[in-house]
Amino acid sequence: MSQELLLIFGVSIFAMAFAVYLIKNVMKRDTGTAKMQEISNAIKEGAEAFLRRQNKTILWLALVTTLLVYLLYTFQKPELALWASLSFILGALSSVVSGYIGMWISIRANIRTASEAMNSMNGALQTALRAGAVSGLFIVALSLLGVVGLFTIALYLGGLETSKIPLYIAGYGFGASFVALFAQLGGGIYTKAADVGADLVGKVEAGIPEDDPRNPAVIADLVGDNVGDCAGRGADLFESTAAENIGAMILAAMLYNGNSAMFGNNPEILLLVILFPLIARAFGLISSVIGIMSVKTKEDKDPMDALNRGYYITSFLAMVGFAVASYWVFGTGTVASSAPNAWWHFLICGIIGILTSVLFLWITQYYTEYKYSPVKSIADASKTGPATNIISGIAVGFECVAYPAIVISAAIISSYALGVSSGLENGGFFATAVATMGMLGPAAYVLAMDTFGPITDNAGGIVEMSQQPEEIRVKTDRLDAVGNTTKALTKGYAVGSAALAAFLLFQAFIVEIKEYSHNYVFPGVDVSQPPVFIGAIMGAMLVFLFSAWAIKAVGRAAQAIIQNVRDQFKRDPGILEGTSKPNYGECVDLVTRAALREMVKPGLLVVLTPVLVGLIFKWLHKMDPVVFKATGAEVVAAMLLIGTIVGVIVALFLNNAGGAWDNAKKFIELEPKDLANNMGKGSDKHKAGVVGDTVGDPFKDTAGPSLHVLIKLLSTVTLVLAPLFI
Amino acid sequence: MSQELLLIFGVSIFAMAFAVYLIKNVMKRDTGTAKMQEISNAIKEGAEAFLRRQNKTILWLALVTTLLVYLLYTFQKPELALWASLSFILGALSSVVSGYIGMWISIRANIRTASEAMNSMNGALQTALRAGAVSGLFIVALSLLGVVGLFTIALYLGGLETSKIPLYIAGYGFGASFVALFAQLGGGIYTKAADVGADLVGKVEAGIPEDDPRNPAVIADLVGDNVGDCAGRGADLFESTAAENIGAMILAAMLYNGNSAMFGNNPEILLLVILFPLIARAFGLISSVIGIMSVKTKEDKDPMDALNRGYYITSFLAMVGFAVASYWVFGTGTVASSAPNAWWHFLICGIIGILTSVLFLWITQYYTEYKYSPVKSIADASKTGPATNIISGIAVGFECVAYPAIVISAAIISSYALGVSSGLENGGFFATAVATMGMLGPAAYVLAMDTFGPITDNAGGIVEMSQQPEEIRVKTDRLDAVGNTTKALTKGYAVGSAALAAFLLFQAFIVEIKEYSHNYVFPGVDVSQPPVFIGAIMGAMLVFLFSAWAIKAVGRAAQAIIQNVRDQFKRDPGILEGTSKPNYGECVDLVTRAALREMVKPGLLVVLTPVLVGLIFKWLHKMDPVVFKATGAEVVAAMLLIGTIVGVIVALFLNNAGGAWDNAKKFIELEPKDLANNMGKGSDKHKAGVVGDTVGDPFKDTAGPSLHVLIKLLSTVTLVLAPLFI
Repeated sequence: MSQELLLIFGVSIFAMAFAVYLIKNVMKRDTGTAKMQEISNAIKEGAEAFLRRQNKTILWLALVTTLLVYLLYTFQKPELALWASLSFILGALSSVVSGYIGMWISIRANIRTASEAMNSMNGALQTALRAGAVSGLFIVALSLLGVVGLFTIALYLGGLETSKIPLYIAGYGFGASFVALFAQLGGGIYTKAADVGADLVGKVEAGIPEDDPRNPAVIADLVGDNVGDCAGRGADLFESTAAENIGAMILAAMLYNGNSAMFGNNPEILLLVILFPLIARAFGLISSVIGIMSVKTKEDKDPMDALNRGYYITSFLAMVGFAVASYWVFGTGTVASSAPNAWWHFLICGIIGILTSVLFLWITQYYTEYKYSPVKSIADASKTGPATNIISGIAVGFECVAYPAIVISAAIISSYALGVSSGLENGGFFATAVATMGMLGPAAYVLAMDTFGPITDNAGGIVEMSQQPEEIRVKTDRLDAVGNTTKALTKGYAVGSAALAAFLLFQAFIVEIKEYSHNYVFPGVDVSQPPVFIGAIMGAMLVFLFSAWAIKAVGRAAQAIIQNVRDQFKRDPGILEGTSKPNYGECVDLVTRAALREMVKPGLLVVLTPVLVGLIFKWLHKMDPVVFKATGAEVVAAMLLIGTIVGVIVALFLNNAGGAWDNAKKFIELEPKDLANNMGKGSDKHKAGVVGDTVGDPFKDTAGPSLHVLIKLLSTVTLVLAPLFI
Repeated sequence: MSQELLLIFGVSIFAMAFAVYLIKNVMKRDTGTAKMQEISNAIKEGAEAFLRRQNKTILWLALVTTLLVYLLYTFQKPELALWASLSFILGALSSVVSGYIGMWISIRANIRTASEAMNSMNGALQTALRAGAVSGLFIVALSLLGVVGLFTIALYLGGLETSKIPLYIAGYGFGASFVALFAQLGGGIYTKAADVGADLVGKVEAGIPEDDPRNPAVIADLVGDNVGDCAGRGADLFESTAAENIGAMILAAMLYNGNSAMFGNNPEILLLVILFPLIARAFGLISSVIGIMSVKTKEDKDPMDALNRGYYITSFLAMVGFAVASYWVFGTGTVASSAPNAWWHFLICGIIGILTSVLFLWITQYYTEYKYSPVKSIADASKTGPATNIISGIAVGFECVAYPAIVISAAIISSYALGVSSGLENGGFFATAVATMGMLGPAAYVLAMDTFGPITDNAGGIVEMSQQPEEIRVKTDRLDAVGNTTKALTKGYAVGSAALAAFLLFQAFIVEIKEYSHNYVFPGVDVSQPPVFIGAIMGAMLVFLFSAWAIKAVGRAAQAIIQNVRDQFKRDPGILEGTSKPNYGECVDLVTRAALREMVKPGLLVVLTPVLVGLIFKWLHKMDPVVFKATGAEVVAAMLLIGTIVGVIVALFLNNAGGAWDNAKKFIELEPKDLANNMGKGSDKHKAGVVGDTVGDPFKDTAGPSLHVLIKLLSTVTLVLAPLFI
């Protein structure tokens, strides 16, 4: 086995072992009082029950899809049938495992974080972050191991041609995104239905505070944080890294093929070039390990600073690792003499990617933190009631898409220009892939920060429900606020990387089309052709229709909870008086069933629309190639590209408007309470802020994050089914 | 002069004369009591003052732009400089006149409609519709006269080549859309700032009913209906018909040139083919006249039925007229023997266009009328408060884009297919233009229905403020509700026709590029090329940023009003007690200044972005044609096409969500009042409905309608400046 394969296997196994070490580190911590354990166990049971049922549903859907993929290929490209369906189901299984790991550690770390908070802020911070890192490291390592494992099997056992292997295993990304879509949708619907339902029936109707143990929906709400944010986002980022790994390998193979003479026509070098994306990812993993371990804080310091420091350390080390990888692959050997600039051109592309992620984080902070004017403007508009709060929140959400659009455009065009001038053929598109690799370099650290969010949220809930003293609540509240910020930031990161990854996967799609079509030259995606224009319309429309259905699903599931809580209050008035215990399990069970029922319709919409559009226009083209000059592949390509653009923009709108409303409410709560002047908690202004926060919930936690997965699913489904559309 | 020119001149002059007859018919009606006249005069003064100032601002901006157009052309394509700038300023002036006419009749018809309502429903209905028809007929006739007039001048005095004239006078559409954008924006900001401001400070803060004479902002609110809905939409539809006329003529010239042998190489036939779009429009005008005069109702019948009947009559007659025009141009002479199917293929395309407009009206009705489930679902969600009202309204708005997207797609692809199989070269794209002509056939009637809305709204306000008896209020309330429906429907119509017109203008743009570039073959709009992809991103982003700025402008202008009303209440407590008269003029003046200030920023964004993007990428292409393979023209084309798709979708979302919220509130108001069960006027459910209605105001009356104009401005600015981007 070559040294680069050994390195990749070694690093991914090391990262997993390190995740196991972190599990031990977290698990040995104190689990607090009996009361706390009782609550934590209720959350644990609910989350596990949900995930068990959800996974069952998803695996059934995945099995049916595997079969369909196999059959479709058998009729059209039989040589791909086995590999496409095998890698699809492996990808799906890995994604299920990734989601499960994220939730497994999170429901165990929440109580330990709460318990550590009784002693020190640093202990609580480290517990939550290291637990988050378990999921971050494990997921990124698994995606690396899955891709390199499949690659190695195909190489040594399958006997496939090296440069074609990435095309054969592209199904791994499709399987992963298939599961991620349903996991994110189901979890997102669960978490927000529980949240909205609990708030409306508890805070608004019964007038009891958030996380009050008398509210029968309160455990469902805490369960939601785990299944939506941990399991959902875990599957989402697993998918990002897996799909991006494979897409970049497809482009790397194309790069080698276009310049084989420069690379010395050497099969060993071919292997090295194809594995370049995985090598870069391996270095990124090591940087994340170091970054995570570097995080510590003092009692009186802002824990957000510590997390930011860790992030910058990781990013810096990832750049260094990128430089090493780039020099190793492109700075040595024959290619170094014929294209001496290539290695540092690609290095700069990687840095562009890392900078893009930093800029996305800054922009997200600007639009969602209450230090800055957008959130303040929403808080200010709340003075005149909920209507102006909503109007100004939507205006902020619409406006916030401008900078990210410019940043993404600049990243694409500058890396493309660097690639074209690298001295290598086909360098342009490969370079945009390199920028994406750079952006995804610190993925494990970002994912750790993300999982940190629901853990601290849960810790706060446990402290609240077990009625701990004020000073501990202050600590967990502070950590919870940091967690809200990290969740918002990682959404910005996820959407930015989704945009770049989609562009990368699209280029891989073009390579694939070239590979499989003998008489057909892919002419590009000319949207001035009527059928292609229609593909573009369908892509944009899909984003809106999907978001509508996702939001509606939350509404329906929330109605189910509200009804149940009302029933419980009516059946046993002792619940509200605090003399009898509500039936938490009934609520958990109800929302589980509702969320799983509701996730199917929007999920199938996304999976089936590109397939249908592709097949319809393929058939129309076969019927009348004069009128329908464009093939199904071109129409689907337009759908994918425009769906990506619109999906990214709408996701930014939904995520950031939601985050801004959330923090506008917090900002009002921090004002000195003064009802006469309409300020602070309990004022009309605050009530308007609560309305905005509630509206934002399904935006930022259901529809928005599901759109990230939609974008990537569009890419992977197109990539895998491309041969069928021509 | 040829008979077709005589026909077009004749019909447009006849339609204008008919409009004068209608003015006389309306003006001779009774003007009610002294109290009513006092109110009506206040509205009249306010509206005229606003329009005077707005026109001054717009004309200054237009003059500067004329100069810029002249200079830009002088340096790059001097032969076009004079015609481009001349037709630009003429288009701008005509658009100003169109907006003025709409408002002129509307502020005179409101009181006459109110007064007629004291006698009979039929009288009131006819007064409002005939007044609306003044604006509808005049505007469509003016756009016809303007285009044919410029064409004739260029032909007989300018001595230009017949087939190139439409390219020379394309500036007319640009001038019209330039003015339309600012008119719609300024009017839209004015009307909603006044509406939201008056509601918040009156209904919410002071607890006085809508249209209460004690509210100092109430006249500003009534003025708003005139300047936003009449003047704004008048300029908007003037622009649609003018730009579509010219775009279709460009494509008709291309059709002739591609098939000159079939047409017998006959310059007279060339003239006939080029004028085909105008002939079809002329027949459409006649149909509208008949349709308008056919509308009458009985005391006990639903006036909406009468309006619908008139619309169907107009549509049917427009189809007949289309058949005549199509047969005349393509069914006789040499072309009839070589392409015998052409005339009825194009006829079917025209019918497709008319059916598209009918389908758009139906879809809009489904999503915005309270008979159907979407609005009911919003009303239902209001039970649990404003947050769920907003969430479900946004879900309805997101969802409503699906059917229109499918209808537009079907219209484009089917007319394209009919054109390709017509037997004529280049028939495909021309056929999509023919569908657009069909859709715009009943434009004058639709515009009459649209202007009907603000007239009846004002009539209701006058009746309310002059404290007329209950039975008259019931009549004007009923007419007002019909007016709300027609306003919603015409917005659906406007957005649908904007989508088709943009596709048409884009094809004209390609023809123009071919005409002016000698060494450059326009390769299509391949969005898989990075620069073109970036153009697409910018197009989508522009729609969101523009909407954000438009919505924010309303918020800022509304704040100004709220402050002023509060001041007035504080200065003179007698206002609220009804003992002293508020200062209406101060409010009107204030919102006028605020609206004009706020319209400039979003307006310039739309005008300058395509110019900047086009010039930057032209320059990059000149710098490095390897990296930046795409020219500025291709990048701008992507921006235009994707901006159109996203603009149409977002406009549908904003218009229909706004309309649905409005009617959900009305639906709740119609419930039997039962506060214990949270139903009817004054309940919490109703309050939630009011929040949704207020949120929807800037959506449906400012941002949404301005997006229609944005779409068309993108097309016309690209069309006119295309020669500069290559």
